[in-house]
Amino acid sequence: MIEYKKATIEDMEAIHSLVKELAVYEKAAFEVDTTVQNYEVDFKDNWFDAIVAIDGESIVGLALYYKSYSTWKGRMIYLEDLIVTQSYRRQGIGLELLRQLEIEAKSMNAKLMKWQVLDWNTPAIDFYNTLGVKIEKEWYNCKKML
Amino acid sequence: MIEYKKATIEDMEAIHSLVKELAVYEKAAFEVDTTVQNYEVDFKDNWFDAIVAIDGESIVGLALYYKSYSTWKGRMIYLEDLIVTQSYRRQGIGLELLRQLEIEAKSMNAKLMKWQVLDWNTPAIDFYNTLGVKIEKEWYNCKKML
Repeated sequence: MIEYKKATIEDMEAIHSLVKELAVYEKAAFEVDTTVQNYEVDFKDNWFDAIVAIDGESIVGLALYYKSYSTWKGRMIYLEDLIVTQSYRRQGIGLELLRQLEIEAKSMNAKLMKWQVLDWNTPAIDFYNTLGVKIEKEWYNCKKML
Repeated sequence: MIEYKKATIEDMEAIHSLVKELAVYEKAAFEVDTTVQNYEVDFKDNWFDAIVAIDGESIVGLALYYKSYSTWKGRMIYLEDLIVTQSYRRQGIGLELLRQLEIEAKSMNAKLMKWQVLDWNTPAIDFYNTLGVKIEKEWYNCKKML
């Protein structure tokens, strides 16, 4: 039985592990500059929040998000990462994390949720389409390192 | 002489006007659901921040942003809207707003800044390229209204 709850500072190590696991899978482990300590400090300073999926004592999935803002629509929740550990996939945990996040977003009076998907990730895009998600293909991301 | 400062609650009306002006120009005024009052409440509740460009008493440009988070890189500043009113364009105000935001972001220990550009907006893309901005073309936006 999987349980869902808002993350606390004690969960940062497990969250960092899941992020690392995914980066390794994507052959991009060298891109992860953040440490568990960064997560702990930044979580305390309200840079992000997370909902975690728990099996017994283990965190097996997460939705990491933060407050953002649409100047046209108002309060927005930005879902930065949705991760389910390899062996727990295809059980509906990702969908339930999205559902839990939607409940949380509504309780904050958010008007919409936003996230991104890679253009080649057809299974995810098909899945989001079944949920009534609007997919926008005409935007590029701009990133400047500081 | 244009001056730059962090927005206060008194600036929300002018900021809303600039957002509206741009939406009208884009023939999308009907898409703007937010009111000045929304901005005032949400600004007070820390959903966003802004740097404004001022000529005398008038706000003629803005960079609207909020704290966000990269699980790989750490603290991130998300630039939601960069607007310069029609008659003040082509004077470098947009560039200076970006520069001021970069200073602000660094003071918050942010590791990167992120924003988006429309794929057809070649002048903007060329401009960002001259600034050493990394443009990512492989992501789609997903939006779910709540």
